[in-house]
Amino acid sequence: MNPTIELLKSHRSIRKFTDQKIPRELLLELVRAGQAAATSSHIQAYSVIHVTDPAKREMIAELAGGQGYIASCSDFLVFCADMKRPTEASERTGAKVVRGMTEQLLVASVDAALMAQNVVVAAESEGLGICYIGGIRNNPQQISDLLALPDHVYPVFGLCLGYPAHDPDVKPRLPVEAVLMENTYREDLAPVADFDATMHRYYSERSGGNKDTDWSRNLQPLFDTKLRPHMRDFLVKRGFEMK
Amino acid sequence: MNPTIELLKSHRSIRKFTDQKIPRELLLELVRAGQAAATSSHIQAYSVIHVTDPAKREMIAELAGGQGYIASCSDFLVFCADMKRPTEASERTGAKVVRGMTEQLLVASVDAALMAQNVVVAAESEGLGICYIGGIRNNPQQISDLLALPDHVYPVFGLCLGYPAHDPDVKPRLPVEAVLMENTYREDLAPVADFDATMHRYYSERSGGNKDTDWSRNLQPLFDTKLRPHMRDFLVKRGFEMK
Repeated sequence: MNPTIELLKSHRSIRKFTDQKIPRELLLELVRAGQAAATSSHIQAYSVIHVTDPAKREMIAELAGGQGYIASCSDFLVFCADMKRPTEASERTGAKVVRGMTEQLLVASVDAALMAQNVVVAAESEGLGICYIGGIRNNPQQISDLLALPDHVYPVFGLCLGYPAHDPDVKPRLPVEAVLMENTYREDLAPVADFDATMHRYYSERSGGNKDTDWSRNLQPLFDTKLRPHMRDFLVKRGFEMK
Repeated sequence: MNPTIELLKSHRSIRKFTDQKIPRELLLELVRAGQAAATSSHIQAYSVIHVTDPAKREMIAELAGGQGYIASCSDFLVFCADMKRPTEASERTGAKVVRGMTEQLLVASVDAALMAQNVVVAAESEGLGICYIGGIRNNPQQISDLLALPDHVYPVFGLCLGYPAHDPDVKPRLPVEAVLMENTYREDLAPVADFDATMHRYYSERSGGNKDTDWSRNLQPLFDTKLRPHMRDFLVKRGFEMK
């Protein structure tokens, strides 16, 4: 296993950060490393908002469900799917542009994710810790207002960056056999059951025996209500009509 | 710049591969490195189909618009957004599961993308070359039939992996100033114009002066027709209703 693969496999989310600040030049380098990721048809359908205003950071921490490390980490980035820049660039060359296709939502969301993951790997290679913040989709309209995001741009997730002040364990993942299949999709419940046993031990050990749950049981709050039911209307309103 | 960041910044798509095969154990290691990526609420909403059947590879190459390297690369993976595994795991614990939310489509698509990008970085760290294949969304229903994908699973993109048989240049990216903004979205057309000049030179040099285009002009075929207009109906039919 080479050091890069070792680095990838040692990822864990960091939610406590020291006061040390990330140098500006390093932050730029991380974003450039992000931009080097593959991008669908060279479209680069993303923008990154670096939130440096402490008041905005506090508000986002609140809007994302009370995640204080959004305010306390060294740097907080909001990764946006951005179809405004490429469509308007194309319009300036005289193209009659079609907007609002479902495919465009996927392209821009995936582009933003590939780019962000490169930023994460680059950050971790420099000893930084990170935490993705999907919680900004709890209140995407308020986040968009706060950051003055125009139509055809939506906030996909946030990212906390900073120097780690704790050292959490790596969280187990499904066995590779559950996820990797050959030629056709096949469902194998045995590795999922094994994983539930692994996660049950994991939660039990970390809680001194007080947390009686596993992977499958832990998913319930994600699925037994309508997850972020505002997302459809929000996206449509912002020009991602999913046609 | 450390070696990992250097690696990230040296990415380019590889479309010609030697006959050398990737050892099975290395392929597994790449997928495990992928699984180590962050995942929304630990949901791991992805499956990876390793297509080893040469006839299927040929058919996918055709369905993706005649991309022969899908058949000729060492290994071809299809990354799927998979809401079947987590929702059914939750149902087995007694949860009343809600499906088809727009948010769930985003979560699973982003999860698959973060995972894939880790696979890519791991692969490139081992000297492999890769090429993402968005073209599998040209014919997602046929691809789904070929791989026997069930409902609540959709193919997001493919990935060619193998040992490079050519050494293309790194393709330029937008200046970081075009993409990174502070506190609010702001549109700055100057770096986009600079980038068009860069890409004009890039295409001109690589074509011996025969290719007169740039980034903005190159986007036209992406936007002047309805891009993959089947995607909405396809996703709805497969259980991603975008509610």
